[in-house]
Amino acid sequence: MNSLERLEGLSTSLLAHSREATVSSHAAEVIDAYESLDPKDRAAYFGFLRDEMTVDHDALRSAATSYLESPDEAGAVALGTASEPVRREFLRLLNTAPWGTRSIVNMRADLLELLPKNPGLRVVDAAFLHVLRSWFNQGFLELRRLDWSTPAAILEKLIAYEAVHAIVGWDDLRRRLESDRRLYAYMHTALPDEPLIFVEVALVDRIVGSIEDVLTQPPAVDLAEPTTAIFYSITNTQPGLSGISFGNFLIKQVMGELQREIPTLDTFSTLSPIPGFLVWLRGQSDEDLEWMDPGARARLPALNGTEWIDFPWAQQDLEPVLMQAAAHYLYTVKRPGSNPPRPLDPVARFHLRNGASIHRLNWMGDPSPKGLGESAGMLVNYLYDADAVIAHVEAFVGDGTIAASDQIKALAAGRTVSATDVASR
Amino acid sequence: MNSLERLEGLSTSLLAHSREATVSSHAAEVIDAYESLDPKDRAAYFGFLRDEMTVDHDALRSAATSYLESPDEAGAVALGTASEPVRREFLRLLNTAPWGTRSIVNMRADLLELLPKNPGLRVVDAAFLHVLRSWFNQGFLELRRLDWSTPAAILEKLIAYEAVHAIVGWDDLRRRLESDRRLYAYMHTALPDEPLIFVEVALVDRIVGSIEDVLTQPPAVDLAEPTTAIFYSITNTQPGLSGISFGNFLIKQVMGELQREIPTLDTFSTLSPIPGFLVWLRGQSDEDLEWMDPGARARLPALNGTEWIDFPWAQQDLEPVLMQAAAHYLYTVKRPGSNPPRPLDPVARFHLRNGASIHRLNWMGDPSPKGLGESAGMLVNYLYDADAVIAHVEAFVGDGTIAASDQIKALAAGRTVSATDVASR
Amino acid sequence: MNSLERLEGLSTSLLAHSREATVSSHAAEVIDAYESLDPKDRAAYFGFLRDEMTVDHDALRSAATSYLESPDEAGAVALGTASEPVRREFLRLLNTAPWGTRSIVNMRADLLELLPKNPGLRVVDAAFLHVLRSWFNQGFLELRRLDWSTPAAILEKLIAYEAVHAIVGWDDLRRRLESDRRLYAYMHTALPDEPLIFVEVALVDRIVGSIEDVLTQPPAVDLAEPTTAIFYSITNTQPGLSGISFGNFLIKQVMGELQREIPTLDTFSTLSPIPGFLVWLRGQSDEDLEWMDPGARARLPALNGTEWIDFPWAQQDLEPVLMQAAAHYLYTVKRPGSNPPRPLDPVARFHLRNGASIHRLNWMGDPSPKGLGESAGMLVNYLYDADAVIAHVEAFVGDGTIAASDQIKALAAGRTVSATDVASR
Amino acid sequence: MNSLERLEGLSTSLLAHSREATVSSHAAEVIDAYESLDPKDRAAYFGFLRDEMTVDHDALRSAATSYLESPDEAGAVALGTASEPVRREFLRLLNTAPWGTRSIVNMRADLLELLPKNPGLRVVDAAFLHVLRSWFNQGFLELRRLDWSTPAAILEKLIAYEAVHAIVGWDDLRRRLESDRRLYAYMHTALPDEPLIFVEVALVDRIVGSIEDVLTQPPAVDLAEPTTAIFYSITNTQPGLSGISFGNFLIKQVMGELQREIPTLDTFSTLSPIPGFLVWLRGQSDEDLEWMDPGARARLPALNGTEWIDFPWAQQDLEPVLMQAAAHYLYTVKRPGSNPPRPLDPVARFHLRNGASIHRLNWMGDPSPKGLGESAGMLVNYLYDADAVIAHVEAFVGDGTIAASDQIKALAAGRTVSATDVASR
Repeated sequence: MNSLERLEGLSTSLLAHSREATVSSHAAEVIDAYESLDPKDRAAYFGFLRDEMTVDHDALRSAATSYLESPDEAGAVALGTASEPVRREFLRLLNTAPWGTRSIVNMRADLLELLPKNPGLRVVDAAFLHVLRSWFNQGFLELRRLDWSTPAAILEKLIAYEAVHAIVGWDDLRRRLESDRRLYAYMHTALPDEPLIFVEVALVDRIVGSIEDVLTQPPAVDLAEPTTAIFYSITNTQPGLSGISFGNFLIKQVMGELQREIPTLDTFSTLSPIPGFLVWLRGQSDEDLEWMDPGARARLPALNGTEWIDFPWAQQDLEPVLMQAAAHYLYTVKRPGSNPPRPLDPVARFHLRNGASIHRLNWMGDPSPKGLGESAGMLVNYLYDADAVIAHVEAFVGDGTIAASDQIKALAAGRTVSATDVASR
Repeated sequence: MNSLERLEGLSTSLLAHSREATVSSHAAEVIDAYESLDPKDRAAYFGFLRDEMTVDHDALRSAATSYLESPDEAGAVALGTASEPVRREFLRLLNTAPWGTRSIVNMRADLLELLPKNPGLRVVDAAFLHVLRSWFNQGFLELRRLDWSTPAAILEKLIAYEAVHAIVGWDDLRRRLESDRRLYAYMHTALPDEPLIFVEVALVDRIVGSIEDVLTQPPAVDLAEPTTAIFYSITNTQPGLSGISFGNFLIKQVMGELQREIPTLDTFSTLSPIPGFLVWLRGQSDEDLEWMDPGARARLPALNGTEWIDFPWAQQDLEPVLMQAAAHYLYTVKRPGSNPPRPLDPVARFHLRNGASIHRLNWMGDPSPKGLGESAGMLVNYLYDADAVIAHVEAFVGDGTIAASDQIKALAAGRTVSATDVASR
Repeated sequence: MNSLERLEGLSTSLLAHSREATVSSHAAEVIDAYESLDPKDRAAYFGFLRDEMTVDHDALRSAATSYLESPDEAGAVALGTASEPVRREFLRLLNTAPWGTRSIVNMRADLLELLPKNPGLRVVDAAFLHVLRSWFNQGFLELRRLDWSTPAAILEKLIAYEAVHAIVGWDDLRRRLESDRRLYAYMHTALPDEPLIFVEVALVDRIVGSIEDVLTQPPAVDLAEPTTAIFYSITNTQPGLSGISFGNFLIKQVMGELQREIPTLDTFSTLSPIPGFLVWLRGQSDEDLEWMDPGARARLPALNGTEWIDFPWAQQDLEPVLMQAAAHYLYTVKRPGSNPPRPLDPVARFHLRNGASIHRLNWMGDPSPKGLGESAGMLVNYLYDADAVIAHVEAFVGDGTIAASDQIKALAAGRTVSATDVASR
Repeated sequence: MNSLERLEGLSTSLLAHSREATVSSHAAEVIDAYESLDPKDRAAYFGFLRDEMTVDHDALRSAATSYLESPDEAGAVALGTASEPVRREFLRLLNTAPWGTRSIVNMRADLLELLPKNPGLRVVDAAFLHVLRSWFNQGFLELRRLDWSTPAAILEKLIAYEAVHAIVGWDDLRRRLESDRRLYAYMHTALPDEPLIFVEVALVDRIVGSIEDVLTQPPAVDLAEPTTAIFYSITNTQPGLSGISFGNFLIKQVMGELQREIPTLDTFSTLSPIPGFLVWLRGQSDEDLEWMDPGARARLPALNGTEWIDFPWAQQDLEPVLMQAAAHYLYTVKRPGSNPPRPLDPVARFHLRNGASIHRLNWMGDPSPKGLGESAGMLVNYLYDADAVIAHVEAFVGDGTIAASDQIKALAAGRTVSATDVASR
């Protein structure tokens, strides 16, 4: 019996002995067997879950027929019950193993990697998503502030996971946990060492446009009364929980916490990347760019090569055109087929959906290789104005209207805006 | 607008604003409104959940039709999704309120009280049960030993909840937490002050047949090496979690804990009530009792009245007949319509289903008014023999075979067994 | 070898092996041996500590001689070192046992009981007091609020220890922990289950004069903004820590905590017993009472017997004379030989020394047998006025000036004050 | 008023208001004032404590005179009381400040630095040592295992403090906390973030002689049953607690913990530096070294310069002579004036005093610059044999007898021992 067959046998057996006291150690055996499975056999195992742990089609057919004859609420409930595939119960049993939830989350991460090439496994993912969405209900998440008194075993996860502005070692991490910084995470009791999502905040006295100002400045011991909270990084850590949205509530709950703790705060803004900008721009034909100021457009070819990165004068030359293009990209360019129309940029979609407005583009906000490669070094501030959030959400959800500052609108329309205008608030 | 209408309005509105940061306080408003609702309006509110928070019948019909045309796994998943009633999502949103889970459990307790008179609300209960079963998955329960260092706020719940042998005040409770006793509970992070189910155990040196020996004896400081763990009470505390089984795992997990802590333990037994015995016996006609030893049967009429309770000689007279009848009730009498046949007595069903055997009937094991009223004062030991549990479960689940000691079988067959025989092991 | 000799041998041996790794278990042996010693042998054991664990008199004589020749600071230090008796080091070694501190506190409680009949043991107590005062330095005490979430093992100590108004069971205790009550204790890490001293506070809307109003009223759920904190009981729990003062800081630290938590509080008062009043009064001759209003004095004989307790008219008759006498007792009567003069009443001494003023006498404030027996049922409020505390302390410490309200002064001077005047603020 | 005068004024005032509720904030003011004092004024401030916070010399003279007249125990107690300088009470008051203990420990560290040039301040240090020794009684220390789940704020202290084998960053630290390593510390509640002393242990399968084997080997996942615990580093972290011995108990308590946790352990050894060896050796004249094998001695001059460090053949040449010299240094060379004789090497003194034996010299055990500079790269194992510890202590304490292995004795006697002989056990 090879290891895949053994795993399948154990899985079947777990279901058969679901009420026994041994279910927890039985589930642990299944998980061990899965974890020692050769990765190339995973698709086969998920196929087994699809093909063998199915719904009872006879019962479901019968329930569907009954319902169609008499389509009432009780019939719908019966249909719902009949449509439960065995694999869902299987996952509930797996969860009884020590660290079961963690293993299920990791299994789903494996499964998601296989989906593009194995679309037939989507029905298996549906079962994973169903149970995980229930278990990771917002009501079971704990918002926790992480700081220097947090166990190292949790803090090292932040270093490993940070996806926006990499944390380069413990000194960098410590800087982000000083008294003028905050780091909040959602935690779940089933994964006690794992921040599920975390957000990093700088407490400052103005809307900051440069990530270096956030990351490298020494702690502001003199900043007695910060006015502004900058959300400069937000990271989802668990690929296996993809599709379960945490970020929306996290930002707003953190805003509430900060407001309570520091009454002098009156401005909440992000400092965000524009991840798809250059990819998009390089895909634009000349005609696509006709909306642009012709003088600006003429400079675009300089973007090819790396000269513009290395020479300040080349950067200066490109600044107006790229600022226009980026504003246009964020404010005007839509995701194909979205209705109501939605921005192409995923970060913009996220914050606008949450009720923020596009506030300010920042030239050379992130001159790191990653920043230059994604967005020619630009960063953008999204502003969360508590009084306007609901109106923004309604407009955006309704017909796709995007809230933006005058500068953004002017740039997006191909007008030239001086750096000073942009920088000022 | 009356308070029912207000609650319904808030409920509808919660769904409409499900992605907003205010969802948690919005959910709290719904819960407050529910809790201040006149109890007589509750049925109407649950009716609202049934009638207004339904499935999308158009979509479900369409999914059912598609499935019947092409009954594959993907169609079943689509059907499952389409069969989700809105009220399930509504409960998930409610759960975001502080203490949301607790409130939902309490709401379901209210709902279950209404069901007998409002069977149409079963479809609503199906939604409650669906989400609660998922959230209270065995994997999320924490087995905790409760003792005198436990917060008073939790301990007082034990006094309030104990259903088998009432805890009469803090001194009685303290006795049950001494060094020769154990009390284990399942806890859940969403109800941090609530033991969901708890079991009380006495560590002794023999299988005890009298509850007074358990409850009133002073702590056995000299019992260095107990051999026997008596599970003398097991209590489910949350009516709102009815239908979600905890007891099975609790007993077996506690057996494991005790075995690890106290290696000298080699016997695990319950000391259990026979709650339905006298009700059943009084419903028996003469013909029903023909199986019984005629001499014994002749004494039965003495059971009417209370003389037998007050006079030892009357008790002595009744003992043989009642012991036979109780053994017969436990071992032979079945629940009508059960297939394979199942005992009529619910406690017997529970322990036999878990793999125990009926070990010994104890005359005057519980001479309290409750004990006398339920079972003429008899208690029964169910024995958990780790080596036999699986075989017992398989036999019981298979064809209904009940494991029982020779004494029980003899009594159940209408034979007379001397008290000494019964008492000895 | 009898058990006293064994204990003495172990004690000597502990000193001889003080640097060995076994010191902790060795110390535990000494403590066990002490705890199983016949109580009648305790005096002999403390005598052993006095006679055998002495200072090195040769060295001390030599140090004393040196110092007298050249009385400088270094000589004083040397003298201090030479004057250290071995028994102090012995106690430091005892402290290495598990729960050593607790045992030393208990040993000192035993010792204090023996002192009156064994004044020669005072030198032993000096060693206990020296180490305990150092270990229980105010800086090592933790102020903790105890409430219903506190472990039962700590709460039961409150029931056992409460010395002023007995807590009659868990329901009474719970009432004192409701949301309109507070209970604060000092805790020390070496005695984790023992509140060293605790104070009970009622949050109300006026200065309360009746203990029944405090203890039996249902929780004031409507009292959104209490104005007044009544300290109605303060209890030292550890006789073995007698002579180490905790109460002074406790009251003031609790005032600070309450002020922070509940900004509406503007009045802090006690509701205190007058424990020595009737004993004092019964010892007064006619001449002693000449200061009193003659009409009042004439009624005093009625105080003999118990008629005045049982009949309201008799009480009414005595009220003016007892109120005068009590005010006089508190305000005017001094402890013999105190200089500057100090009140005879120990509770008055305590609060006046802390900066309070005598605010109001309350007739029938405590009609319990204890209250009637101590002070004819009267209670007194001491008022802590944050703005006046320092001035009060300085005046009291300086020349013994007592701060008191006009009513107290009038009564103490033998004038009649109507009940209404007294009751009003 | 300059800052020194201000500090002195605050200090005097703290004593004058010692019973007031403000004592804690008053003490905090003194500490703040001390901490912002110019370091060059510290000696003056400690001089103030010496000159102004003195004993009452009149009272002490009188107590000394009385005692000399009648030298009994009560007189000794009175003398002890009279010899208490005010500065001791002052320190007790300082301790009431938040983090007071920590500040007092730090003040003493400052004071100890000043002592060599200001021997007159020793009387001030006596007061510090008196209170700290009492507060840091062994009974108040908590042995805690530190690992990767420990807060980063504590772990970073380990990196900062490690004095024997520097921890170079978090990765190095993490290696020392893996499953085959242990790190134990003594903690005190008054300094919750500060390990007072910590010891690092490697769990291995033989007595290890090379620090690189300890520090750089990957975790031994296969080492199911380690036989040997190597204590390879022990660090006192608080200069302000100098003179209060923790190490003795720490090693033995950790041995007990490890023995309980891992029953397969049967050997406990250190891997220790020989810090004073080369300094001593370079101070030896030719006559001093006459005990040595002449052939070996002839090679010694090669030790000047650095050639021997860089060339293996030069090391090889020196090995025999240095091994002999080191064994001689550890085993034979005594601290001048010690009686009974004690080794000159402080690490040897420490472990021999604790009952260890000198077990094995390890050539090139620590080839780091520090190791080469101190001891020509040699390390030594001290062996803790539980059965022999008490006998070793008694012999060492008695007449200075040193327990050592045959190899050590042979080397110390100037005999040549082959490397193989030394390496084997």
